[in-house]
Amino acid sequence: MATEKLNVGLLGCGNVGRGLVELVARNRELIRQRSGVELHINKILVREMGKRRPGVDRDLLTTDPDKVIDNGCDLVVELVGGVEPARSFIKQAIAGGKHVVTANKALLALDGFTLMKAAETQNVRLGFEASVCGGIPIIRALRNGLVGNSIESLNGILNGTCNYILTRMEEARLVFESALQEAQAKGFAEADPTLDIDGHDAAQKLKILAELAFQAQIAPDAVQTEGIRNITADDIQAARELGYIVKHIASAELRDGRLSLSVHPAMLPRTHQLATIREEKNAVLVRGDAVGEMLFTGKGAGSMPSASAVLSDVVDIACHTGGFSSTLGEKLSAASVDYVAQHYLRFVVSDPSAIGPITAMLQRNGIGVTGAAALWAKTQSGHHQVRVLTQRCSRTTVEQARQDIEELNVAKGDGTLLRVLE
Amino acid sequence: MATEKLNVGLLGCGNVGRGLVELVARNRELIRQRSGVELHINKILVREMGKRRPGVDRDLLTTDPDKVIDNGCDLVVELVGGVEPARSFIKQAIAGGKHVVTANKALLALDGFTLMKAAETQNVRLGFEASVCGGIPIIRALRNGLVGNSIESLNGILNGTCNYILTRMEEARLVFESALQEAQAKGFAEADPTLDIDGHDAAQKLKILAELAFQAQIAPDAVQTEGIRNITADDIQAARELGYIVKHIASAELRDGRLSLSVHPAMLPRTHQLATIREEKNAVLVRGDAVGEMLFTGKGAGSMPSASAVLSDVVDIACHTGGFSSTLGEKLSAASVDYVAQHYLRFVVSDPSAIGPITAMLQRNGIGVTGAAALWAKTQSGHHQVRVLTQRCSRTTVEQARQDIEELNVAKGDGTLLRVLE
Repeated sequence: MATEKLNVGLLGCGNVGRGLVELVARNRELIRQRSGVELHINKILVREMGKRRPGVDRDLLTTDPDKVIDNGCDLVVELVGGVEPARSFIKQAIAGGKHVVTANKALLALDGFTLMKAAETQNVRLGFEASVCGGIPIIRALRNGLVGNSIESLNGILNGTCNYILTRMEEARLVFESALQEAQAKGFAEADPTLDIDGHDAAQKLKILAELAFQAQIAPDAVQTEGIRNITADDIQAARELGYIVKHIASAELRDGRLSLSVHPAMLPRTHQLATIREEKNAVLVRGDAVGEMLFTGKGAGSMPSASAVLSDVVDIACHTGGFSSTLGEKLSAASVDYVAQHYLRFVVSDPSAIGPITAMLQRNGIGVTGAAALWAKTQSGHHQVRVLTQRCSRTTVEQARQDIEELNVAKGDGTLLRVLE
Repeated sequence: MATEKLNVGLLGCGNVGRGLVELVARNRELIRQRSGVELHINKILVREMGKRRPGVDRDLLTTDPDKVIDNGCDLVVELVGGVEPARSFIKQAIAGGKHVVTANKALLALDGFTLMKAAETQNVRLGFEASVCGGIPIIRALRNGLVGNSIESLNGILNGTCNYILTRMEEARLVFESALQEAQAKGFAEADPTLDIDGHDAAQKLKILAELAFQAQIAPDAVQTEGIRNITADDIQAARELGYIVKHIASAELRDGRLSLSVHPAMLPRTHQLATIREEKNAVLVRGDAVGEMLFTGKGAGSMPSASAVLSDVVDIACHTGGFSSTLGEKLSAASVDYVAQHYLRFVVSDPSAIGPITAMLQRNGIGVTGAAALWAKTQSGHHQVRVLTQRCSRTTVEQARQDIEELNVAKGDGTLLRVLE
C-alpha cells in the first residue's frame, strides 16, 4: 500500500497543540502502518516566539497566520480557541480549499452550522471530534457508527468539573465550596469556574452533539441551562435517602418531532448507567432505533485525549481524500499467553485440613498466599472447600501449582482457577 | 451536495439480512441527509425462494450467488455466515473489484488477515463492524477514533450469553444450569450453547479486535480460552464475600512487546468499570497511551444492532469512495425545552408545617405528589426543609408551581428543582 504524505499547518501551540506535536512524533510510524498516512507538521502559529515549548521544533514557529494557512499544507488544525480570530482563520482556510480540524467548542456552538455549510460548499472537510468529550469518539459515532439509526435521545455527563464536584460531594460528603476548591487544586476546574459550574460548557457541547444526532440547526439559546451552584449537601443526602444520586446531565430528546434540550442537575436511580460515571469522567448515552442504548465513557478533557481526537480527524480526512486506509501489520505475529495477576483458587476437599498441603504446594511453587483469604467453607452441595487468594504470580506458575496440587490427591478434580482483575 | 446512489448486493436473508432491509427502508431518507448516500438493495441471495420474509421484495430474491456478486452492484454485503461458501463469495466479490461488508465473525477469526490483504491488493474495502459486539462501533473506534493511540490493553465482556448467565447467578443466586436454561428461554443462548459458554465466541471476537488494536497477525490458537461451565454458585458467593464479582473477560495486553491473549472467567473488584455491565450487554474497555481508559457498552447482538453496524460500514465505504459526507439538516431548526418527568423539589422553611400549603399549591397546579417522598428534615445548616418528589409532570408546569410556591412566602428563596431521570 502506498503511503500518502500529509502536510499539516497548526494554528496555536498551547496544551493541546503541544500534545499533538508530541503524539505525532511518538506514534508517527504506528499511524502510518494503520492508515497509510505519513503526517508532517509544517508550520505552527504562535503568539510569542520566545516561550519555552519542550519538544517543539523552533524552526516551525511563526507569528504570521498566513504563513500557516496559505503555505503548501493540505490541512489546517485550529487550536487557537475562542471566537476570533479563530473563526477568520477557519474561513480563510476553507476558502483556500484546505480541510480543517478544530477543537473549538465555543466557536462551533456559536457558528458551527455556517462553518459546516462553508466547508460543504468548498468541498473540503471540517473535523471537530476534539470539541466534545476529549478523546471519546462520540462525534464519529454519531456521524458514522450510528448513521443508520434514527436517534431518539442523547443523555450525557459532558462537563468533567461538575462531575468531579458532585462525585466529591456524594462520596466524601463535602459541601459545594470545598469540592470546588479541591477540583481547582487538582486542575479539574479553572480559576474562574463559571463556564463549567453554571452549565454553559455542557450546553455548548450538547448543542454540537444534538445538531449532529438530530440533523437540526439549533438556536444558541435553545438549551435550557442550569448549573450546580445551588446543590447543597442536603440535596445530595436527600437523593441518597430516596435511592438516587445527583448528576449534572445534558439531555436532548425527540418528542413528537420536537427537540427538548436541557442541561441541569438531575436525580438518577443508582442503577442508571450514568450513575456510575465518577470524578472527572465524561459519558454519553445514546438511544438509537436500531442499536438501543449505547454508552461511551472516558476522559473528557486533557491535552493528550484532545490531541488524540484531533489526530483521528486528521487521519480520517487524509484517508477520505487520499487512498484507502490500511489496518494491517505483522509486527506481533507471535502471541504468548502468560500474564501476572492475583488468582483465586477453589478446591473441593473431603477434609478441610487439606488447606495445609495446598498452601504449602503453592508456596513451593513460589506463590504467596494473601493470608486473610485462605479459608475453608461448607459448600451448598455439602462438600468442604479450600479457597485461596494468591499474591501476584504468572498464569503459567499458578497453572503448574494447580497441577501439582491435583497430584497431591487431597482435592476432588482440579478445582476452579480465576484471575483477579485490578 | 450531490447525492450518490449506491447499489448493494445482499448475500443471505436471515435475521440480520431482514433487519438490514427493514432499516434501509425505514431510515433511507435520514441516511441520505446525513451522508449524501442513497442506498438501494438490488439483489438478495437466499437458499429457498419460498420462505416467508415479511417486508422483503420477492422480486429481489435469487438462489444464484453470481446474480448478486457479478451484477451491477457497487458493494456486496455477506450475511451467509460460516466459513464456506461465505469465504468463496467474499473472495469472488473482492476479485471482481467490489467492496465487501461482512458480519462473519467465525470467518474473520479464521482467515481475516488473508481477506484483508486480498482487499488491499484489489484496492477495495472490507468492512466488518458487525462481526464484533453488534451495534457498538468498536471496530471503527480502533481503526479510526483511536488511530493516534498506541493501544496498551483491551478488556471486554464480548459474549452476551455468558454475561447473562453470570448476572443471573450473581443477582438471583441461580446455579449455572438454571441460569443457562433461563438464557435459552429468553433467546440469549442457543439450543447448543457450546460456542458461547465455552468461550470460543469471545475468543474469535478478541482475535479480531486484537489484530486491529495491536497491528498483529494472531494465530487462531493463540487465545487461551476458558468458559464458564465450571463456575459454581459457591464461586460466585466466595467472590461476593471477598468484594468481587465474577465476569467472563476477554483480555489482550501488551507486555514487553509481546501480546498476552486470554478469555476466561475472572474476579473483578465491584468498583471495576466492567463490573456494572449486566445481563446480555457487551462492553469493551480500551486503554490507549493518549486517551487513557475508554469504555464502550451496548447490545452486542440482535438483528437490528447488527444491521446498524452493517449499515455504518456500507455508508462509510460509500463516503470514502464517492464524494464527501454531509451531516447537515434543517428539519428541526426550532427547539422547545419542555419535557415530562418526575421532579424533586426542596424548600428551606422556618416552619415544617409549610408542607401543607406547598403540597396544596402543587396539587392546584395539577401536580401529583408521590406520598412517601413528601417529608421534612432538619438540614445540616440548621434550617427545616420540605422535600417533595412529584409524579410525572411537564417542566413548564413544575416551574409555574415553584413560582406560585415562592409567592406563598412560606419558603426562603425558590428552593431546588431537580428532574428525576428514569
